[in-house]
Amino acid sequence: MGKEQIKNESITRQEDDFAQWYTDVCKKAELMDYSSVKGFIIYRPYGFAIWEQIRNYLDFRFKESGHENVYMPSVIPESLFNKEKEHVEGFAPETLIATIGGKAPIEDRLIIRPTSEVLFCEHFQKVINSYRDLPKLYNQWCSVVRWEKTTRPFLRGAEFLWQEGHTMHESEEEARTEALKMLQIYDDLGKDVLAVPFVKGRKTDKEKFAGAEETYCIEALMPDGKALQSGTTHYFGNGFAKAFGIQFQGRDGKLANPYQTSWGVSTRLLGSIIMVHGDDNGLVLPPKVAPIQVVVIPIASQKPGVIPAAREVAKTLKDAGFRVKLDEGDKSPGWKFSEYEMKGVPLRLELGPRDIEAGQCVLAKRNDGTKITVKLDELVNAVKELLETIHTEMYQRAYKFVEEHTRECHSVEEIEQALNDRCYAKVMWDGEEESETKIKELFQATARAIPFNQIPFDDKCAISGKPAKKVVLFGRAY
Amino acid sequence: MGKEQIKNESITRQEDDFAQWYTDVCKKAELMDYSSVKGFIIYRPYGFAIWEQIRNYLDFRFKESGHENVYMPSVIPESLFNKEKEHVEGFAPETLIATIGGKAPIEDRLIIRPTSEVLFCEHFQKVINSYRDLPKLYNQWCSVVRWEKTTRPFLRGAEFLWQEGHTMHESEEEARTEALKMLQIYDDLGKDVLAVPFVKGRKTDKEKFAGAEETYCIEALMPDGKALQSGTTHYFGNGFAKAFGIQFQGRDGKLANPYQTSWGVSTRLLGSIIMVHGDDNGLVLPPKVAPIQVVVIPIASQKPGVIPAAREVAKTLKDAGFRVKLDEGDKSPGWKFSEYEMKGVPLRLELGPRDIEAGQCVLAKRNDGTKITVKLDELVNAVKELLETIHTEMYQRAYKFVEEHTRECHSVEEIEQALNDRCYAKVMWDGEEESETKIKELFQATARAIPFNQIPFDDKCAISGKPAKKVVLFGRAY
Repeated sequence: MGKEQIKNESITRQEDDFAQWYTDVCKKAELMDYSSVKGFIIYRPYGFAIWEQIRNYLDFRFKESGHENVYMPSVIPESLFNKEKEHVEGFAPETLIATIGGKAPIEDRLIIRPTSEVLFCEHFQKVINSYRDLPKLYNQWCSVVRWEKTTRPFLRGAEFLWQEGHTMHESEEEARTEALKMLQIYDDLGKDVLAVPFVKGRKTDKEKFAGAEETYCIEALMPDGKALQSGTTHYFGNGFAKAFGIQFQGRDGKLANPYQTSWGVSTRLLGSIIMVHGDDNGLVLPPKVAPIQVVVIPIASQKPGVIPAAREVAKTLKDAGFRVKLDEGDKSPGWKFSEYEMKGVPLRLELGPRDIEAGQCVLAKRNDGTKITVKLDELVNAVKELLETIHTEMYQRAYKFVEEHTRECHSVEEIEQALNDRCYAKVMWDGEEESETKIKELFQATARAIPFNQIPFDDKCAISGKPAKKVVLFGRAY
Repeated sequence: MGKEQIKNESITRQEDDFAQWYTDVCKKAELMDYSSVKGFIIYRPYGFAIWEQIRNYLDFRFKESGHENVYMPSVIPESLFNKEKEHVEGFAPETLIATIGGKAPIEDRLIIRPTSEVLFCEHFQKVINSYRDLPKLYNQWCSVVRWEKTTRPFLRGAEFLWQEGHTMHESEEEARTEALKMLQIYDDLGKDVLAVPFVKGRKTDKEKFAGAEETYCIEALMPDGKALQSGTTHYFGNGFAKAFGIQFQGRDGKLANPYQTSWGVSTRLLGSIIMVHGDDNGLVLPPKVAPIQVVVIPIASQKPGVIPAAREVAKTLKDAGFRVKLDEGDKSPGWKFSEYEMKGVPLRLELGPRDIEAGQCVLAKRNDGTKITVKLDELVNAVKELLETIHTEMYQRAYKFVEEHTRECHSVEEIEQALNDRCYAKVMWDGEEESETKIKELFQATARAIPFNQIPFDDKCAISGKPAKKVVLFGRAY
């Protein structure tokens, strides 16, 4: 039992130091490791496998809704990058620039892509001529580089993995619909896959993406009360199209600029999963993304018949389509329990000589520790149902947390109190940037979203006292 | 018919200018487009979808054989890169280097990864301690950058997509077996998926990878007689492990350096598919990678009942698991025939009023133009069988080409003649680099492979006249 205790002690407790708990889990659960370049992390197999599950879900949804994958260059000539002014200003401070190629200086220096709007625009300009060429519904899975000063695994990196969708449409309405449709797919991802409830909303003008007309977002709330922007979709209007000379001949025979969107989620979602669900024993993974859904641990494995029975059980579950690991290693069951708890495996299956004799096994749920004894001939159904139950329970628990940590505030003092109590400050807002800035300066909190779900609860702005226009959620953020 | 003729004329004929034919097909079939940075191409949806099919196949085979995906940083500090001398010398001339981050100079300049051996080694050094940590079987899907002067779509790019496997093993034997096992998976890809026959062999010391002890390869032969190196696997011994201080405690309790492999294939395979199978009408895609396997073209689509019947047929095929496109567009059937021929769609399904009445349709095979009339109620089976037949016919045709273009040579003159006749020069070789160099200087041809299949046909080296040691294939290469 010595090892087991060491293992538990190796993770800082959440209430002692939440940030350190997070880093411990990232490292100890072998999700990632640091490389020798600051902010560029290594996605280890266990962490990458979670991202693959997310990718598989989204890639299916994207293709199902008519999107096609492409791959654009990883570098952008500085001259091209400079073509859209607002956009440049948003990204220029954090770019990584290549200046030497094949031992010679590069004339038009190359920016390692921080996002690919301009590359897509340059290409669209060539391939869009007629309304018949529209819509163009493109997506790209790639890595991007942003030279951030303060970095944290998954949450903010100098390099991260993501998908970026870029689409072009005949009409404003179609483009705006696209931006909202993709936001819904992200929201589905949260609800159906990650068990993370998101607040869906629109960003204020101050917080929107550089160059966008409208930015929509999904925001998650972490146990430390900080918000995590988990995905955004942007409606660009035709600003980029004009800057890049993208035109099409419409159904009326006239030339027009198409309307554009872009949208993305990144490996940041891993940070969201870790924080929303994790506990002092480590990760708690939602079943849909868990690289191992069921770990089979033989008890008293030296006894005859145990290992063969455990193998048969593992095979049965694998054949039924579950992601299963059988651990036949020479460590003690106690050590293994602790190890797979830390790794957040949703279900542990224990199988010992007595279980085998009784034709049963024990299933332990990671999310609440409950143990259930199940007949082996009912195992497949039981596992299926339990994984669904775990997903639902995890989602409901997280949902309740957001509900309990969203507080209506009627004054600046109440906003401060809410933020200090690890809550979203739900605020009636006059729509002025001045009010936003005031909260930012006072409490380092920003307008996270103007939620789609607008239920006014006051007619005065909590900050300025002027007539209120919108419900806004303020929060400190990652 | 006007448009149709223009389309056909838009592709240069192979015999007029093979290189131009290749570029025409890449562009006109919408596989790729150029970006504004030389050598960095855009993978358009149709081209990228072919790569996705290759990736899906390989990813499945890799995982099935115990490999795990990871993601390493896209940049390598120059100091780290310089750690393995031979390796550095192999890549230094063609690196892209980032020197500015967040508007400030970077002290340890960052090389955009041309390959990731050193990154994996740095990580292995941290995570390998005991024989229990071995083997490590890692793979990464990513893009790499090599600052090439002369570039051609897919064949040689400043940036390309690939997978790079990196593994560490307890013993020399296990590592060498791994390198050969992965080569076999690549060979299976050729035979079972791409319908491209590869010669499997080992590279000469002169041609092996920078830093490797042994390099194994799959080589394909193009219609213009040039070889295309299509994939390589490397056995590294423990040279990198020593340079990076990677050690593990063995079963005997002693410290040792593990043995390493790496292996990769890239989007270069698209070049191979295009050239091996293509003809004057454009692409001819092997069914296993074709983004569209069957295109359904309604004939006299204005006639009542045609479009609904075409939709039903398309749905039936889709439901059966085929990748199907129904073209309801307003272009003429002739234009569509030509378009999908150019795009290399393996099967065209024609359905007109008379066919519908007779409960049948016409299937046309892209690879040889054959047309077959099939009863609609036997369609699914017929399509399944035809796609298999097409694959086999394409492979056999390509195999025959390699057989007919591999010529045993007994003298330097015969080598020259073989090369000029678009053949591999199969040569008995004394094993000396001097002989290789002579052929390179005389005819710009290199030793492509020492084939595994060694059947000596002379006892003297065709180049030096000295005693022969090995059968080698010489060829000009892409």
